[in-house]
Amino acid sequence: MVVLVRPRNPLNIGAVARAMTNFGAHRLRLVESYAPAFREARSAVGATDVLKQAEEFQTVAEAVADCALVVGTTAVRKRVLQHPVRRLDTESGGAIRSDLHAGRVALLFGSEKIGLTNHDFSHCHWLLNIPTSARNISMNLGQAVAVCLYEIARSAQSALRSKAAAGEATASDNESRATAGDAEQISALLLEALHNSGYVKPGNDAMCEKKVRSLVLRFDLKALDATVLLGMVRQIIWKLRQSDKD
Amino acid sequence: MVVLVRPRNPLNIGAVARAMTNFGAHRLRLVESYAPAFREARSAVGATDVLKQAEEFQTVAEAVADCALVVGTTAVRKRVLQHPVRRLDTESGGAIRSDLHAGRVALLFGSEKIGLTNHDFSHCHWLLNIPTSARNISMNLGQAVAVCLYEIARSAQSALRSKAAAGEATASDNESRATAGDAEQISALLLEALHNSGYVKPGNDAMCEKKVRSLVLRFDLKALDATVLLGMVRQIIWKLRQSDKD
Repeated sequence: MVVLVRPRNPLNIGAVARAMTNFGAHRLRLVESYAPAFREARSAVGATDVLKQAEEFQTVAEAVADCALVVGTTAVRKRVLQHPVRRLDTESGGAIRSDLHAGRVALLFGSEKIGLTNHDFSHCHWLLNIPTSARNISMNLGQAVAVCLYEIARSAQSALRSKAAAGEATASDNESRATAGDAEQISALLLEALHNSGYVKPGNDAMCEKKVRSLVLRFDLKALDATVLLGMVRQIIWKLRQSDKD
Repeated sequence: MVVLVRPRNPLNIGAVARAMTNFGAHRLRLVESYAPAFREARSAVGATDVLKQAEEFQTVAEAVADCALVVGTTAVRKRVLQHPVRRLDTESGGAIRSDLHAGRVALLFGSEKIGLTNHDFSHCHWLLNIPTSARNISMNLGQAVAVCLYEIARSAQSALRSKAAAGEATASDNESRATAGDAEQISALLLEALHNSGYVKPGNDAMCEKKVRSLVLRFDLKALDATVLLGMVRQIIWKLRQSDKD
């Protein structure tokens, strides 16, 4: 699934949808899209089904809530806000592809001008960088999507080929991943526990929120573990609330 | 070098030039370009040097005259006019790249509507096909150029990396992992918080302890994250103990 965060140019939105049909991606979501741009892209001659069925969301959290893996794209190579940055290649493309079996995957692209913000990054498990020339690291949105989807589709094809070569399909990892929505719930409760216990100091709310969210994403939880952890944090909060009443 | 044959859309010409700067390609040639489109692309705000220095030719023959290898692109997979069609991948990308040492290489892209003609193909050593979904094999011009140049640049980089690996050790990932001792400390404190909050019921101590330890190990923490998490759990425990005193 491709998620465009704050896209502004209808031509770019259309180009993204077209690249998706080229590489077999179906689901397009837009966050805080500029309404006239989306309307114009959607009503353009030759608008693809992908574009017609695109969904709109108010926040990144809502757009990725049902995803097991959230990957943000960035033109910057060095790590941002404790987020690991991986170079787009067969390995990272293959990692995204293999996670498609464990649940829905979201690939986030920022606006044409400024890309994704640190707040957007805090919703991502890791970040992806397209290796470009140092002379111009900023790619056109439609082209960046095309290159990423090409690599992911390509990695899938070579993975399928090696599986076929190995003989039979191997028993794949049948442990499903926790969704971004589960992780967000854990983060919110953990943040509440930290608020209640005085870990969060006045003025560092926003920083702590990002810190907690990206920490929980780095746990890389399985669905089952998420349930367990959620139960633990809930119980701790219940106790903290009880003691506040006393 | 990228050769655009009969391009019609100024936005596409600009997008091609931009993708070239992203992937370190410098030379752009246009054959039978629609003059107003080229003028408009060239005079656009933010037109790249690549575009400003683009050369115009009347025929494909003239445009590729000084090239050692001429590769045409096509959306069609089967061989055309006795021309071998190769799929874009590491191998074909690498072949193009390695020929760059032997002389100038031209990568031909046809017009947005009809692509390259059989006549154009006749100037090519072989043809290149971007592996797309069967549902939509026709790519946007700027995106097709971006994907091809990405693959060619990528193939070059992996060649460089294998060289580096063979020679000197590259700076390795210097993010140290949390030790088992760190994880154990976190587990113990988390278990205390769970005891205190009533999550651990009489009789299930041992089970909970194992559950917590293996959960924390599955977090696969970096050393830095372990420190952060330890701080959080400590603060929660402090608060729980405070409330017990009340």
